[in-house]
Amino acid sequence: MLNLTNHQILLAARPKGEPKPEDFEEVETSARSPEVGEVLCRTIYLSLDPYMRGRMNAGKSYAKPVEVGSVMEGGTVGQVLESQHEGLAIGDIVVGPGGWQEYFTVPGVKVRKVDPAWGPISTAVGVLGMPGVTAYTGLLNIGKPQPKETLVVAAASGAVGSAVGQIARIKGARSVGVAGSSEKCRFATEEFGFDVCLNHRDPDFAEQLRAVCPDGIDVYFENVGGKVFDAVLPLLNEFARIPVCGMIAHYNSTELPPGPNLTPLILRSILTKRLTLRGFIVWDFASQEAEALQMMAGWLQDGQLRYHEDVVEGLGSAPQALIGLLNGDNFGKVVVRISPEPF
Amino acid sequence: MLNLTNHQILLAARPKGEPKPEDFEEVETSARSPEVGEVLCRTIYLSLDPYMRGRMNAGKSYAKPVEVGSVMEGGTVGQVLESQHEGLAIGDIVVGPGGWQEYFTVPGVKVRKVDPAWGPISTAVGVLGMPGVTAYTGLLNIGKPQPKETLVVAAASGAVGSAVGQIARIKGARSVGVAGSSEKCRFATEEFGFDVCLNHRDPDFAEQLRAVCPDGIDVYFENVGGKVFDAVLPLLNEFARIPVCGMIAHYNSTELPPGPNLTPLILRSILTKRLTLRGFIVWDFASQEAEALQMMAGWLQDGQLRYHEDVVEGLGSAPQALIGLLNGDNFGKVVVRISPEPF
Repeated sequence: MLNLTNHQILLAARPKGEPKPEDFEEVETSARSPEVGEVLCRTIYLSLDPYMRGRMNAGKSYAKPVEVGSVMEGGTVGQVLESQHEGLAIGDIVVGPGGWQEYFTVPGVKVRKVDPAWGPISTAVGVLGMPGVTAYTGLLNIGKPQPKETLVVAAASGAVGSAVGQIARIKGARSVGVAGSSEKCRFATEEFGFDVCLNHRDPDFAEQLRAVCPDGIDVYFENVGGKVFDAVLPLLNEFARIPVCGMIAHYNSTELPPGPNLTPLILRSILTKRLTLRGFIVWDFASQEAEALQMMAGWLQDGQLRYHEDVVEGLGSAPQALIGLLNGDNFGKVVVRISPEPF
Repeated sequence: MLNLTNHQILLAARPKGEPKPEDFEEVETSARSPEVGEVLCRTIYLSLDPYMRGRMNAGKSYAKPVEVGSVMEGGTVGQVLESQHEGLAIGDIVVGPGGWQEYFTVPGVKVRKVDPAWGPISTAVGVLGMPGVTAYTGLLNIGKPQPKETLVVAAASGAVGSAVGQIARIKGARSVGVAGSSEKCRFATEEFGFDVCLNHRDPDFAEQLRAVCPDGIDVYFENVGGKVFDAVLPLLNEFARIPVCGMIAHYNSTELPPGPNLTPLILRSILTKRLTLRGFIVWDFASQEAEALQMMAGWLQDGQLRYHEDVVEGLGSAPQALIGLLNGDNFGKVVVRISPEPF
């Protein structure tokens, strides 16, 4: 039985608008020994993802909120230090809901063993993990890009957006990315192969989007909302599909934007263009996880799929990194390195 | 060759907001003899439908606008007077796009022969025609009501709404109707079997809706928009389906409503509740028309499905009747009797 000091980051207060450092609190406790069926793991990587902002609010979204005073939730890659779960042995690398802490003790059935042969283990919370499966399942089940069609996705250099754009291209579609800086746009086209990528901070963004979508938009993978949605709406083609995955532009909002109220315009567009908008969460397609991971791993290995990580050092950096992520300060998939990878 | 005086109603001007009588013009012409492949028909019933308001605007919605100076478009039941189309004989009753006129000459392939054994021939533009097929295909392909689920539909005493509510009940769901008067609500429950029907003009309509939907809403068949949509949105269950068929509350609008802009709220609801909103037009499901008509006719004959017609007399009454329809003045499916039924 190990006796390990465990640093944790708790939700200290529910943020109003943008989270502040004081909304988080770092505490020192002891790691809990595993009971029957459980494993104790050392956290190696903590994933930071936009959905975490929702968990900081009171009230159910699609999942229960994190309680004030509880450890912040998050996906983690860890190494098994003690196992009371058959099928998991000391030394195994696993991915699961470890949360913002140095050690986590969870039921063995809640983690998945990571095969390091598939790629760097950090990808188990990235392109070969929740964000990758989100991109794959949402795009292919709802977006259904067809050869020659035009897809638009924002956060094009981010974890989900970069995968969406590349998968759409693998399926023969044209990928138009949207990102928050010219550097990100350059990266999206040069590294991720987007046909074009636009900076949504440009004052004439909507006109630029129209210009680069001469045949309209067939698939809009919605992960931001805000002005990108507003610019996309009039360009959507008949029978366009809109997987609704997120709306990061609004996560820190404390009130609705001013008028006019565009609801009738949205309904009219849905009607006259016969649009399909469908919200989804990655676990709605849980039965497709294995297939998605296998396909993504194959594309990674044959070079059709790339990813970029923005690695932040140390548990204590996580709060500021999440605040930055919600502002678009990150460059790629944000992972926090909590402890070294095993040799 | 017949020489027939033909009264027609033309679109005289594009309405601004609510159509006015001056936006229509009645003219006298001669009926055109059929060319090869065509039939000349005497109009018996003209259907009035909310979509007609859209055709009066410039700019494409899902169909081309009616040109100023052209005959108003509309579905009609007629009797063949002359036929140059094999398969259609003098005396046949047909349904097709005859428009607002006493006689119409159209290609035979554009009309469908009506079997009077199925029901009164006026139903060929009602429950056994476009509105009925709209209700059937939109509800079953997109709404997919399941036993014990709750469906909400507005215009519950109208052509589409009344059919939607009844089909949902046939499928085992609970039907909650919304209508514009207590008389219509009573009719919806007593004649069409809605479990309950609410008057959207009641000031506490939203609270009433919440009270009568204790298990939330699983299917919202959208044909009105406006405050009904706003009241439904917070009550939708996870994985609810919203066929978007119309938005009559907005057809006469000349500007968007004031703020706040509810777009982020709609997107958030779609995301967190995993909603599906999908727009459709009846002809998107053209391949299902025969099946739909057969099922509807069967339900009519065995008494599971009822309908109510609001019959208006004479071509000249059509403009005011359409203006009234857009205001909710009608009581059931609006048909204009242009000439007598054959004996």
